[in-house]
Amino acid sequence: MLTLYHYVNSLCSQKVRMCLAEKGLDWQSRHVHLGKFEQWQPAYTRINPKGFVPALDHDGRILIESNVIIEYLEDSFPDTRLRPKDAYARALMRRWTYDSEEIGHANANALSHNRFHAPGWAQRFTPQQLQDFLTTCPYPMLAARYGRRLAHGVSAAEEETAYAAFGFLFDQMEAALANGPWLAGDDYSLGDIAVTPSVKRAEVLRPSVLDPARRPLMADWWRRIQARPAYKLAFSFPDPDQAGR
Amino acid sequence: MLTLYHYVNSLCSQKVRMCLAEKGLDWQSRHVHLGKFEQWQPAYTRINPKGFVPALDHDGRILIESNVIIEYLEDSFPDTRLRPKDAYARALMRRWTYDSEEIGHANANALSHNRFHAPGWAQRFTPQQLQDFLTTCPYPMLAARYGRRLAHGVSAAEEETAYAAFGFLFDQMEAALANGPWLAGDDYSLGDIAVTPSVKRAEVLRPSVLDPARRPLMADWWRRIQARPAYKLAFSFPDPDQAGR
Repeated sequence: MLTLYHYVNSLCSQKVRMCLAEKGLDWQSRHVHLGKFEQWQPAYTRINPKGFVPALDHDGRILIESNVIIEYLEDSFPDTRLRPKDAYARALMRRWTYDSEEIGHANANALSHNRFHAPGWAQRFTPQQLQDFLTTCPYPMLAARYGRRLAHGVSAAEEETAYAAFGFLFDQMEAALANGPWLAGDDYSLGDIAVTPSVKRAEVLRPSVLDPARRPLMADWWRRIQARPAYKLAFSFPDPDQAGR
Repeated sequence: MLTLYHYVNSLCSQKVRMCLAEKGLDWQSRHVHLGKFEQWQPAYTRINPKGFVPALDHDGRILIESNVIIEYLEDSFPDTRLRPKDAYARALMRRWTYDSEEIGHANANALSHNRFHAPGWAQRFTPQQLQDFLTTCPYPMLAARYGRRLAHGVSAAEEETAYAAFGFLFDQMEAALANGPWLAGDDYSLGDIAVTPSVKRAEVLRPSVLDPARRPLMADWWRRIQARPAYKLAFSFPDPDQAGR
């Protein structure tokens, strides 16, 4: 039995949902509402001491970190192969899973603060309540970031750095796609899956970053990604905040 | 032929040197002096467009990112096995390779700024020269961090957050070591190798963080790590700044 602790709009959750969909695996949903800070409640930090989603429970064994989870799914359910056989192609794949965190997730998260996170929090909570949540955060690095954002938000300069980082990532992807249809070369892989949520978020935030005239190979890759049934399934998980509207 | 682009005191370089040593592999050294900003010169950014070390050249194929490189070495030279066979143990291993970057490297780098990086730079360069190097940095996220540190250094509050993050990491390691002699359980693995440079740096910076009374299992693990010939080899690479002194 696979049970996924996840949040509808979390990039790292989307990554794992897309991998599960590619492999055609059934899973139980445990939705952890980040907008209500459920991820820092003891019921969840027993599962993931960092207070992040996603986490995967496979027959009682807990896994954390989205990149770790998708390689575990590949190791455990290899029938639909999402990792190249060749060692060098695997390394190329892992470069993209790595950058999906270092560049993609870090900057998409920063850029989502002013547009999505802060307004969502303000609808539900008072400034004092938001400050009180800080004391519930179990992970020092996350607490420091949350505290900084409560105090200062994300500045225009930080946002421009984040868009520049996306530009760097997308330039690297364009260069990689000159060597094959997918990021690791011939084979569609976990690398393509891993960066997909960040690309989608970047497009939502500033559509011009995906200008096909500037990066035609990436634009073609992006069309092929969005046409995959697994993409559609991963991104169609129902948003509980939209229920009944 | 394996050629490693690395720097003597870079944590991520130490990680790869230790992996190479465990596997008994011969390699050619291309030392990239971070204290002289050689990593941002075009001769090197052609190898690694991020301007980070290490990078590995294996028969003309270039690999970047230390965690990617050590899994590649495992895939390519599996005779000395450093990755468990069991899928769950592999996932545990990868949780530590992941955290060696997210927690270990990020915080060790921050804590090394005031103690090592800034004084080293000031010995070699004027403030204007240091500012000029900013324009040579190829990677927007790194440029932003370097610019912030030139302007503001690393504050005492940031340092305390970094030590708290190490405390979190070490608590997690202590908990993991209750399940076996090594971080992924029964088998010594890339997970143990990956966190080693950060543990060593933390000990240099603030020896009390490794208080054996507080985390006895980790203290025992640390003694066993330091006794390994591969550890000694990885950390004995000659420092060119010490040559002839």
